[in-house]
Amino acid sequence: MPQSEVSGVSRTLAELVAATSWADVAAQQHEAKRSILNFFATAIGSAHDPAVTIALRTLLPFSGGASSTIIGRTERLDAMGAAFVNAISANLLDFDDTHPETIIHPAAPVAAPVLALAEARGLHGRDVLTAFILGVEVECRIGNAVSPQHYARGWHITSTCGIFGAAAACAKLLGLSVDDIANAIGIAASQSAGNVENLPTAAKNVSVGNAARNGLFAALLAQQGYEAAPRAIEGPLGWARAMGDDPDLGRLLGGLGQTWEISKNTYKPYPAGIVFHAVIDACFALREQYHVTTAQIAAVRVRGDALLLARGDRLVRNAREARVSMQHCVAAPFLWGKAGVEEFAEARVMSDAAVAFRTLVRAELDASLPMGAATVIVRTHAGDTYEATVVHARGSLAHPLSDAELDAKVSAAASGAMPAPDIEQALTMLWQLQHLATIEPLMALMAGCAAAESP
Amino acid sequence: MPQSEVSGVSRTLAELVAATSWADVAAQQHEAKRSILNFFATAIGSAHDPAVTIALRTLLPFSGGASSTIIGRTERLDAMGAAFVNAISANLLDFDDTHPETIIHPAAPVAAPVLALAEARGLHGRDVLTAFILGVEVECRIGNAVSPQHYARGWHITSTCGIFGAAAACAKLLGLSVDDIANAIGIAASQSAGNVENLPTAAKNVSVGNAARNGLFAALLAQQGYEAAPRAIEGPLGWARAMGDDPDLGRLLGGLGQTWEISKNTYKPYPAGIVFHAVIDACFALREQYHVTTAQIAAVRVRGDALLLARGDRLVRNAREARVSMQHCVAAPFLWGKAGVEEFAEARVMSDAAVAFRTLVRAELDASLPMGAATVIVRTHAGDTYEATVVHARGSLAHPLSDAELDAKVSAAASGAMPAPDIEQALTMLWQLQHLATIEPLMALMAGCAAAESP
Repeated sequence: MPQSEVSGVSRTLAELVAATSWADVAAQQHEAKRSILNFFATAIGSAHDPAVTIALRTLLPFSGGASSTIIGRTERLDAMGAAFVNAISANLLDFDDTHPETIIHPAAPVAAPVLALAEARGLHGRDVLTAFILGVEVECRIGNAVSPQHYARGWHITSTCGIFGAAAACAKLLGLSVDDIANAIGIAASQSAGNVENLPTAAKNVSVGNAARNGLFAALLAQQGYEAAPRAIEGPLGWARAMGDDPDLGRLLGGLGQTWEISKNTYKPYPAGIVFHAVIDACFALREQYHVTTAQIAAVRVRGDALLLARGDRLVRNAREARVSMQHCVAAPFLWGKAGVEEFAEARVMSDAAVAFRTLVRAELDASLPMGAATVIVRTHAGDTYEATVVHARGSLAHPLSDAELDAKVSAAASGAMPAPDIEQALTMLWQLQHLATIEPLMALMAGCAAAESP
Repeated sequence: MPQSEVSGVSRTLAELVAATSWADVAAQQHEAKRSILNFFATAIGSAHDPAVTIALRTLLPFSGGASSTIIGRTERLDAMGAAFVNAISANLLDFDDTHPETIIHPAAPVAAPVLALAEARGLHGRDVLTAFILGVEVECRIGNAVSPQHYARGWHITSTCGIFGAAAACAKLLGLSVDDIANAIGIAASQSAGNVENLPTAAKNVSVGNAARNGLFAALLAQQGYEAAPRAIEGPLGWARAMGDDPDLGRLLGGLGQTWEISKNTYKPYPAGIVFHAVIDACFALREQYHVTTAQIAAVRVRGDALLLARGDRLVRNAREARVSMQHCVAAPFLWGKAGVEEFAEARVMSDAAVAFRTLVRAELDASLPMGAATVIVRTHAGDTYEATVVHARGSLAHPLSDAELDAKVSAAASGAMPAPDIEQALTMLWQLQHLATIEPLMALMAGCAAAESP
């Protein structure tokens, strides 16, 4: 075989995926469990959103055996359908995990098909963790190789790179050979899609769901003998260059098997854009330190870097827009003392109080602040000013959520769908995932039982 | 609603799709029937290829109700699965139709979901024709707007643009409103994928199948209420620009509803790249006019434009490579007096006679020849030379296949799968498609009955 084929990206990644055993990734298991915990929290929290209900209703007539759980729902689908729907609910509010270097949400497209397939085939929790860690590795390394231009050009990177992670993880779960894993990754290249222009709409959910579903599909096709070009990712007419990038092969393959992208994963305390987390933290700090109340506030100035301003200074007409509005991220902590799912839902977002308060908030560029940092300055009707600066927001790599905070995130999200003892049992299983001979009992719990009827 | 949204591409196309009735497109019905006839010919001819068998085997456990026929096979799938598999078989050998301006193969991604959905829902032949014509219109206009850069950059345009045609056609069949059709087209943007790098492999089939399947999926999701960005196609972070193109909106929308892209469709007499058709015709002409036999031939020179040389001067190691080999396109007519599916299949392609003959053929640039033309010059062992030039190949717009030739193409392709009276009955139905109250009897015939067991 010519050197050019031996060293192709698909094959090099496939060699890692095939050669890596549980023992090789056991040191990453804690972070993997935190990612999966967070995945369940966001999926169950959004399980009855109309976007999830519609996806499920559309797919029900097109499902084979109902082998796999829909998180937070009593309906079941085949593994490909469940992968699609669970990836949508996990990512729906962008409240899922974030890989800061790429802004990929790693878990949704990878955990959804891994869990659906493992449930359908009765696979071991250790295999789930191993496959998940490897899938995140492939997904984020490919994302690293094309960032930040890829997203800036209009590609929804969670969708476009997520499918590679899904394909690699499912190929690992299926026990494929190096050649077949490489083919699964290459087949994923021909299915990679998703536009930023569509992010404010439900079309975004379709590309995230497809990344999960079609990554599994790629692995199933490779298992049956479908092949792909050796250089499907990096070739002259391959994925990266068609999408506009000269992939950085050093970032893609450097330190492969020695460093792990899962160790850089982060989890959000607030269901809002990650760039606004420092703003929210600063508002909470002002509220707690100076006991500033809403009625006292005459004006709020938010100082931040260019990204914060570019992303966040916008009119809010609905809940989707509130999650990427700097103004609403100031309003929520001051108005309600909380910035959770409820404070970013339509009723609160469009309340008279919120609409009025948001008009008090102005944004200003402060180029001296590091990326992700923010300063919030409150002026009261009495003429006093209070100021707080947050450099490392809660949930960032420098200030990560604790295990207990992640437990609480699951509990809060699941409280409407599961009785408290079930939540506790599910959390115990998740933290002991490497010992579960099959994940069926865990998935049965996560289906919930007190779920509301779908609209 | 702001002007910018009113005039968005998705909505403008949706208005055409919603407003167009059978009466508006009846004048295009003849060409539409020719396209669908040709679609059936190529689909049934490849129905037992391993690539089709694998796709079918992979999807069978993931199918809902078996509502739809797999052409040339006894197995059935739900409409999304059947759309996937039938698009693959129709396009497998690139022996399907060609829209010359874009090199899109229009029928595979559009006819496959239209027929699968119409069969599942018991729809009228007139609705099938109307939806198909509109789907081809949307698909090829979007292709026109980004050609030729799109394909040159590495996008497999039949897949990437085919999905828009599939979405529009299925939305029409479902009777969706203007808004919902626009959403279906916009949702298609977030699923558009397929790389040229993967064309020599089965990964190509996946993107073609997905275009058909996911176009239907987009329409079903839009029917249930999923929305897309108004400028999903042409917006700053939308489909066209993410893929690298400033779309030519004049070519996309100019003369909408007055001209019809289906009228520019062409059909191949030979299962080889369209750029080689003039070479094959010239070889047949030499053989017939001068009675040159293989044994007499010492050398062959083929003169053509740069595209012909770029695409065709290559070593042949398998059937896929033979279909894009100038050398094999010379060998087939001289060795066997035919250039059909059999002459491009593995056994003939790798025969000693073909391997030896191909070494006699040399390519030369002739920049004076128009695109698509070729000159073939044969030198005999006796020292004589014979020369033939073909400017308009058989099957081109200037020299189209006749209806009788298309009938013969269907008959030849179906002969192993259907008894002659069934073929005749199917052809009668196809030419009278506008009178079929339901297409079920046609699809039942096209399933075949003498089909070989799948490998």
